[in-house]
Amino acid sequence: VTAEPFPAFDHRPQGMWRYRSLLPIGDGPIRYPLPVGGSPLTGPAVLRDRLGLPDLWVKDETVGTSGSNKDRATALVIEDGLRSGATTITTASTGNAAVATALGAAAAGIRAVIFVPAGCAEAKVAVMRSAGALVLRVVDGYRAAFELSRAAARHFGWLDRNTGVNPLTLHAKKTVAFEIWEQLGRAVPDVVVVPVGDGPTVLAMGRGFRELESLGLTNRVPRLIGVQASGCQPLAREWHGRPDSPVRHSGTIADGIDVPEPISGVEALAEVARSGGAFVAVPDAAMLAAIGMLASTAGVTCEPAGAAGLAGLLKARRMGLVAAGERVVVLVTGRELVVGADVPLEGGEALIAARLDEVERYAGALA
Amino acid sequence: VTAEPFPAFDHRPQGMWRYRSLLPIGDGPIRYPLPVGGSPLTGPAVLRDRLGLPDLWVKDETVGTSGSNKDRATALVIEDGLRSGATTITTASTGNAAVATALGAAAAGIRAVIFVPAGCAEAKVAVMRSAGALVLRVVDGYRAAFELSRAAARHFGWLDRNTGVNPLTLHAKKTVAFEIWEQLGRAVPDVVVVPVGDGPTVLAMGRGFRELESLGLTNRVPRLIGVQASGCQPLAREWHGRPDSPVRHSGTIADGIDVPEPISGVEALAEVARSGGAFVAVPDAAMLAAIGMLASTAGVTCEPAGAAGLAGLLKARRMGLVAAGERVVVLVTGRELVVGADVPLEGGEALIAARLDEVERYAGALA
Repeated sequence: VTAEPFPAFDHRPQGMWRYRSLLPIGDGPIRYPLPVGGSPLTGPAVLRDRLGLPDLWVKDETVGTSGSNKDRATALVIEDGLRSGATTITTASTGNAAVATALGAAAAGIRAVIFVPAGCAEAKVAVMRSAGALVLRVVDGYRAAFELSRAAARHFGWLDRNTGVNPLTLHAKKTVAFEIWEQLGRAVPDVVVVPVGDGPTVLAMGRGFRELESLGLTNRVPRLIGVQASGCQPLAREWHGRPDSPVRHSGTIADGIDVPEPISGVEALAEVARSGGAFVAVPDAAMLAAIGMLASTAGVTCEPAGAAGLAGLLKARRMGLVAAGERVVVLVTGRELVVGADVPLEGGEALIAARLDEVERYAGALA
Repeated sequence: VTAEPFPAFDHRPQGMWRYRSLLPIGDGPIRYPLPVGGSPLTGPAVLRDRLGLPDLWVKDETVGTSGSNKDRATALVIEDGLRSGATTITTASTGNAAVATALGAAAAGIRAVIFVPAGCAEAKVAVMRSAGALVLRVVDGYRAAFELSRAAARHFGWLDRNTGVNPLTLHAKKTVAFEIWEQLGRAVPDVVVVPVGDGPTVLAMGRGFRELESLGLTNRVPRLIGVQASGCQPLAREWHGRPDSPVRHSGTIADGIDVPEPISGVEALAEVARSGGAFVAVPDAAMLAAIGMLASTAGVTCEPAGAAGLAGLLKARRMGLVAAGERVVVLVTGRELVVGADVPLEGGEALIAARLDEVERYAGALA
């Protein structure tokens, strides 16, 4: 009779909350009820062999409650809000941030008002609504949805989880860098490859490693390679000095990075430049192939935007931006969640113009 | 300058492998490359309030690489196989076990040959094939697929991951009970509610708690409530003394528990009886409602079979089987994974009769 099979179960804060002393929240118990962060970093032997990259690593953010890296910012914004008595959270999103916000708000017992472009996929809206969110489809597109969400947050006093503009979102996302560093045995990789839409994920990755540097825990940062879609590559075009090239936006299946006007574009460009990295762009077909490659050689399933990192790494290799012996981390940002047919959708949904009175009409009872 | 923000990163075996001394594998490093186990147990405040169950807990097996609890058995069988040089694994499955096997085999660098009923959903087959599996659709249904998978394992010397019959699958699944006990602070809940198809999940849950008892770590086991679908409830009918009731199998949307002839049915009935528990059956509509309730009050998304536990708990409450003050754990077994359209499907697929020569025709090159 021995208790030895059960050594040292760790009841301290787990996942992202391990870094709470480096996050701008006060003392006291964590109120956010869902697990967040602590995603696996795996060294995929089969994929390494296939690519001839013996020191390749996959940081898999597809696991977790919301299926994407958008858990982290959601959790920190809601944690902060619960401490000040907030009852409603809002964000604009092309998909994953909205799903994470809807689920996180549901678990925390607060209301979510989500602004999406009018054309947002029905399947993603269904997931948001199954979690009880009010989903407002804004006819004027993502940028208008973003501005309206921000205006509504100010007007109604809602929590503003909009990515990039709420500094908490960057603080939350920097913890991915901390985890990579710890999971590699307190070592900084040579390269981190990151899908880029609005910009905060790659921006926070750089800031996380620079924070480690400022803490005296490392003396270098990895080169950041930002990956965009060929059909939506405002930052890659800027990077390569072609901002006014005639074909600006033909669209991409990777809705998570289909952002023609990135909110944090300037900062993302600066962060990548500072790291000595680069931007690349990959066609949809390369992302689809990368989905298959991740599944069949690493056991990881993801959506097109989630596979953009691997597709971008292959492009970067061909361009000579990454050497075979380097230690490379590919961030896989998310997988698609589904809610089956006939699931009751508690939340509401409306198509609106980008005006506050339209928001008030549907969400006014919450204000 | 301090390293204090990064306390005690735990590089020891994580998740299921924390219990390796209680699993039938030898010493040496774990070779299975994907994370497995260690799923969250959350106390969903909003759901507790809604149901008037202040000590309700959700054990969320939807997180993780394969999106279901089928990770665990897959990992242990492959770990064991890698130690003896196995190069092919086989299983029959209605879905999630097959997906987990395909992904786990891909990551481990071995081949997966999956036997499914001919009518298996295209979407699930696509996930298996994206991971490189050979999927054989057996025209004679699940039971025939199961027998054929077993025969092929014997004939070709493949790893047999068939649930229930390979004792490793039960050892792996018992770790869910260990985790619940630890996550509750080394306490046994009053009731655990478990969806039941083939039977091993509920059987292993009971065995896990009984193993804790035999180790002297507890002196009681929880009552197990097994939940079946109204349209496929062979064990619930047996339990209630109606095995020959005229309507035997009308089917259910919950494919994960749509098993008319459960492999481990007798053992599951005995385990539930021994625990002082019961079987209940719930209609598809109740599972759909439970999916919505889990999303909107606990932030958890799942498939119909995954929500059967919560639906069954509501039924058990109405039947007086669970009291309001009891400590109840609901197991949420899985979510649906998707592979988007146009992803290249590396693996193969064929419709076959339940004969070994048919298997040899498609998989012979592997034998």
